[in-house]
Amino acid sequence: MPVILGRSRPRRGVSQAKLPVANRARRDILNADQESNMMNLYDQLKYNSDGLIPAIVQEQATGRVLMMAWMNRASLESTIATGRTHFWSRSRQKFWMKGESSGHVQVVKDISFDCDGDTLLIQVEQTGAACHEGYQSCFFRSARDAGASFQITEPQLKQPEAMYGKK
Amino acid sequence: MPVILGRSRPRRGVSQAKLPVANRARRDILNADQESNMMNLYDQLKYNSDGLIPAIVQEQATGRVLMMAWMNRASLESTIATGRTHFWSRSRQKFWMKGESSGHVQVVKDISFDCDGDTLLIQVEQTGAACHEGYQSCFFRSARDAGASFQITEPQLKQPEAMYGKK
Repeated sequence: MPVILGRSRPRRGVSQAKLPVANRARRDILNADQESNMMNLYDQLKYNSDGLIPAIVQEQATGRVLMMAWMNRASLESTIATGRTHFWSRSRQKFWMKGESSGHVQVVKDISFDCDGDTLLIQVEQTGAACHEGYQSCFFRSARDAGASFQITEPQLKQPEAMYGKK
Repeated sequence: MPVILGRSRPRRGVSQAKLPVANRARRDILNADQESNMMNLYDQLKYNSDGLIPAIVQEQATGRVLMMAWMNRASLESTIATGRTHFWSRSRQKFWMKGESSGHVQVVKDISFDCDGDTLLIQVEQTGAACHEGYQSCFFRSARDAGASFQITEPQLKQPEAMYGKK
């Protein structure tokens, strides 16, 4: 079960009656801290003018950055609820689950967000190739010769036709 | 010296005079292949309507994703020319080099781009903390309790005041 679906730590119900009076102020501070720490993830996030936030997807086991795609609030909610990545396609203007056609789903292990709250980083367990072109990562080409050329840096695991069927 | 500043492989100058006639067609195919492979990095990239492209920055040695920031063509050119990351600040509408205030520069080791050509992934060697809040990575908070809360997941290496001086 993804960590995001579980509790970060057991709830510690502190009954006021059990506390010495001297500890009550300390308890109030703890409660205030706990409350700020219990702030909703969604309240920390900033979406762009289209209501979208970029989500970097990283393979947890290897650290390989697999892809970057966009989420809206609904796709983030589905990602959290199902433990499978869901995105919003800007080109197709469509909600989609990664792997819905190819079977190459991403099991969510962790969702973090950056200091500005405008980017997500999602750790996953990737089934098969992440890239629709059949590479493990969408970042399969690197610049060479000061940007005058580029080179493919990893093997193509599958032909796209084999992933999606002929069209 | 970053790989991007070097040559991917030694140039193999093939003089036509040295080739048997039967090899000339093969040589032409090789030249055509080499030419397509020599396509410019910049021609592969798609910028958004503001002329920007998101750049994910990853620490090469650890695989830690450090930050995501935006580049325009000029900042990418400066990044390649100097081997230090340069960005475009959307909030400040300003060109900036990472570490120009804090000294926490990023030495570029590799620049890759995704299948759609609309995201960059830059491998770096990071000096000090990458995050302006003093954390190694900007992604120092992870969702908990199905998004109802979040947790800080790494130590703060420096107080921001110590990085930038009091304001």
